[in-house]
Amino acid sequence: MNAAPTMTTAPTERAQARRQQVLDAASDAFRRRGFHAASMAEIAKLAGMSPGHIYNLFENKDEIIAAIVERDCEEILARISEIQQEGDLLQKMLEGTEQALDEHSEVAKAALQLEVLAEASRNPRLAAVVRRSQALVNERAQALIRQSLGEQAHAVSDEEIQGRSLLLGALFNGLTALSVRDPEVARQIPVMAPVMRRVLQVLLAP
Amino acid sequence: MNAAPTMTTAPTERAQARRQQVLDAASDAFRRRGFHAASMAEIAKLAGMSPGHIYNLFENKDEIIAAIVERDCEEILARISEIQQEGDLLQKMLEGTEQALDEHSEVAKAALQLEVLAEASRNPRLAAVVRRSQALVNERAQALIRQSLGEQAHAVSDEEIQGRSLLLGALFNGLTALSVRDPEVARQIPVMAPVMRRVLQVLLAP
Repeated sequence: MNAAPTMTTAPTERAQARRQQVLDAASDAFRRRGFHAASMAEIAKLAGMSPGHIYNLFENKDEIIAAIVERDCEEILARISEIQQEGDLLQKMLEGTEQALDEHSEVAKAALQLEVLAEASRNPRLAAVVRRSQALVNERAQALIRQSLGEQAHAVSDEEIQGRSLLLGALFNGLTALSVRDPEVARQIPVMAPVMRRVLQVLLAP
Repeated sequence: MNAAPTMTTAPTERAQARRQQVLDAASDAFRRRGFHAASMAEIAKLAGMSPGHIYNLFENKDEIIAAIVERDCEEILARISEIQQEGDLLQKMLEGTEQALDEHSEVAKAALQLEVLAEASRNPRLAAVVRRSQALVNERAQALIRQSLGEQAHAVSDEEIQGRSLLLGALFNGLTALSVRDPEVARQIPVMAPVMRRVLQVLLAP
């Protein structure tokens, strides 16, 4: 009886780790070759498993790309939760500006994100996944902005919060697009940071 | 002799119109099917010409997508020039906020732009075209910001102008990405506009 939990949890954990392995390999393949050109066989090979094994974990490429979007979404939500733990939230976000700019101008990540969005614009199932993830992030970003407003939050309309949240999202999404347009953007972080801090004040301060 | 100019310019104009026709058809095909899935034959058919004819105008799909990027770039530069003709530039941009938001959240256009950028992240020749176009737009956006600062411009460092210009680019690029993430964003323009105006003040006012 004592051994039972280990016996049931171990394969699940292993399956989880295997799934992560596939998502990493697929991210790499989609980014370098595009979603359509990358095959399940290729992804399996990159993940170091047999083509048969990969189909035990994911039915097809659509399921893999959906799981990549969901994993990204979870990472963003976790990041927002982390920030929400901070005492002086606005102060903390202003201090973290360089890091945020840096994360959003990472070229490899940016390229994958654009590939996902380009595919979503043609693939209704993926579009639904992307939309759900966007709704979750937007909802949490609104909570973050309300928290950042502190005692003044009650005086600010829901529309104002929604407008701020969307533009915050646009800014970070745009940095991603910009770093594919010009990979040199990543070197311009010291130049962007002071301006970004003033924009963040507009979006997060009362 | 009098007829000569007409005889030489007419075919050029016609060729120009034909090229535009191909670019429109290709934009449509790339957006709906993706760059790799769309074939030259399909683009020719959509443009209402023979596959032979299309090869007189463009050597391959790479040339077509590069021409699409260049045409977009010319449109943006023309738009910036138009704004620069205005007397009170900042005032004019603040008044035009809704229109700018509207143009950047047009879903079909956004989808094509993401497809172009995703392809650019894998295709070095296209990446060079995108980068050149980004450099031109950034240069002109900097001139716009300087002009908008008016007499105070001399007191503002080149780095500050560059930071503002990049974030302005990030904002508009981000709206495009956001409208593919959630097509409802286009309906949120009245909600975004007042916040956008305050952000534009940060980026364009002294």
